[in-house]
Amino acid sequence: MSKLLIVGTVAFDAIETPFGKTDKILGGAATYIGLSASNFNVDSAIVSVVGEDFPQEYLDMLAARNIDISGIEVVKGGKTFFWSGKYHNDMNSRDTLATELNVLADFNPVVPENYKDAEIVMLGNLHPGVQMSVINQMTKKPKLIVLDTMNFWMDCAWDDLIEVIKKVDVITINDEEARQLSKEYSLVKAAQKIHEMGPKYVVIKKGEHGALIFNDGNIFFAPALPLEEVFDPTGAGDTFAGGFSGYLAQHKNISFESMKNAIIYGSNLASFCVEKFGTQRMETLTSEEITERLKQFKQLTQFEIEVN
Amino acid sequence: MSKLLIVGTVAFDAIETPFGKTDKILGGAATYIGLSASNFNVDSAIVSVVGEDFPQEYLDMLAARNIDISGIEVVKGGKTFFWSGKYHNDMNSRDTLATELNVLADFNPVVPENYKDAEIVMLGNLHPGVQMSVINQMTKKPKLIVLDTMNFWMDCAWDDLIEVIKKVDVITINDEEARQLSKEYSLVKAAQKIHEMGPKYVVIKKGEHGALIFNDGNIFFAPALPLEEVFDPTGAGDTFAGGFSGYLAQHKNISFESMKNAIIYGSNLASFCVEKFGTQRMETLTSEEITERLKQFKQLTQFEIEVN
Repeated sequence: MSKLLIVGTVAFDAIETPFGKTDKILGGAATYIGLSASNFNVDSAIVSVVGEDFPQEYLDMLAARNIDISGIEVVKGGKTFFWSGKYHNDMNSRDTLATELNVLADFNPVVPENYKDAEIVMLGNLHPGVQMSVINQMTKKPKLIVLDTMNFWMDCAWDDLIEVIKKVDVITINDEEARQLSKEYSLVKAAQKIHEMGPKYVVIKKGEHGALIFNDGNIFFAPALPLEEVFDPTGAGDTFAGGFSGYLAQHKNISFESMKNAIIYGSNLASFCVEKFGTQRMETLTSEEITERLKQFKQLTQFEIEVN
Repeated sequence: MSKLLIVGTVAFDAIETPFGKTDKILGGAATYIGLSASNFNVDSAIVSVVGEDFPQEYLDMLAARNIDISGIEVVKGGKTFFWSGKYHNDMNSRDTLATELNVLADFNPVVPENYKDAEIVMLGNLHPGVQMSVINQMTKKPKLIVLDTMNFWMDCAWDDLIEVIKKVDVITINDEEARQLSKEYSLVKAAQKIHEMGPKYVVIKKGEHGALIFNDGNIFFAPALPLEEVFDPTGAGDTFAGGFSGYLAQHKNISFESMKNAIIYGSNLASFCVEKFGTQRMETLTSEEITERLKQFKQLTQFEIEVN
């Protein structure tokens, strides 16, 4: 099996949406990526950091899904990264109510020895310096490095971000971030500019409007599944990234054709993530449900027109 | 060949976008619908009204594309409907600068005798009372009636609109209008509510984010083609409707499978419309270009994942 190395936050979230409100629950980019990727036949490991307050049951849950958690450092006396946010009625925008970095402030990632030769590296949203440190620890050049990031790092760690972007094969960001990074409004032009910064593949996530992947003049689009309700969008982008990287790791094929399937799987898994608060839905997800939804994606997008 | 009856405005537009500005040019819903549908093998006719100021060359251009213009009334001494608008930088929103109804204020549509048995009726955006009058003039029940409308009529002719919606098979509206009409935020729920108002098929246009068609639990999605530049969005929705109804008329098949192809063709044609100001691009469009773009739509959306 291929090895998938995942780097990102493992955290507490407190979420408020028009449908309800949670206390501190399990969250973090690496958590969502890991849960999503655990639906594929891959060996995966998470590199992250938590505090002493982090419940063992959460770590046990990740381990039970065959995720190697030896790279999750538990800082004695430390407190786990905490984020709190409130979604607006349209669910497309949110206010951050609290961000407590805690143990994340001094995070020094250590890649487990047996994952320094991982074929696929999935760099979840984190300080670009931490992402770079992970790349530098790899003893064998990965087949594919995927980077997820956000506007926050464009605002406060631009130079570090540009350096890590140079090193990756795929970048996944949302539409507004693509515009900010490229200074282009058109997503087609934005993707071209970002391509010139390093990544051969540019994935632009548009939330409820789906996701685009660009490569050298080729474009593929995966819609989001139209849902009756989006209950909680938290983690949808990370779940997408986990589905994308998990699919590629399992299939050992990083062609553009394979990446088309990978973003369909990413959208598929993200469509479950938003159905319940936090990681709830992802924890109970079955392969039968994923297959059933794949049929829905086919019905949603596939058509028969002969082109002569 | 099937007959396609088109009702809507034939008008003057003055448009301002971030890319430039026009004086009064040819516009109107029926104009765009007719030009778009003229790319299919159908007999089509426009029912509309213009003033004496309307240039004969515009009428000649429509006639040259095999559109029957005998139903376009020319009002002696009258002035043609005029709309002027300015698009914002994101091209997704616009301000109306002027609306001069002129001859449209007293428009009494008269369906040509030989189109009273048209198989497909495409009711372009107009006062719902005018749309209803056209339905009432049909001597043979059409195979399919398609209605396009907008928020303006929801604001100022609600009761008339609800009456005409009851009579049609397909409604095409944009996402915000679907929400206004149904009082539901979720587009899936909105489509269900609108379905209960009458139309078996609900098409929700999301502009640059594509279009959805809903029918009895089935959903199909056609993306908009990602473009480097959108030069002028005016008429894109009408062009979409013209491609949709033109495809269905040519293929004489109004199954859901056929409608999937029809909204792909609608999106295909709309992607050309926005490339130049007004009707310019549609006037020079060739079938080779449409076929070439269809290949792009296939590359953009079709994937190969076996579902067991």
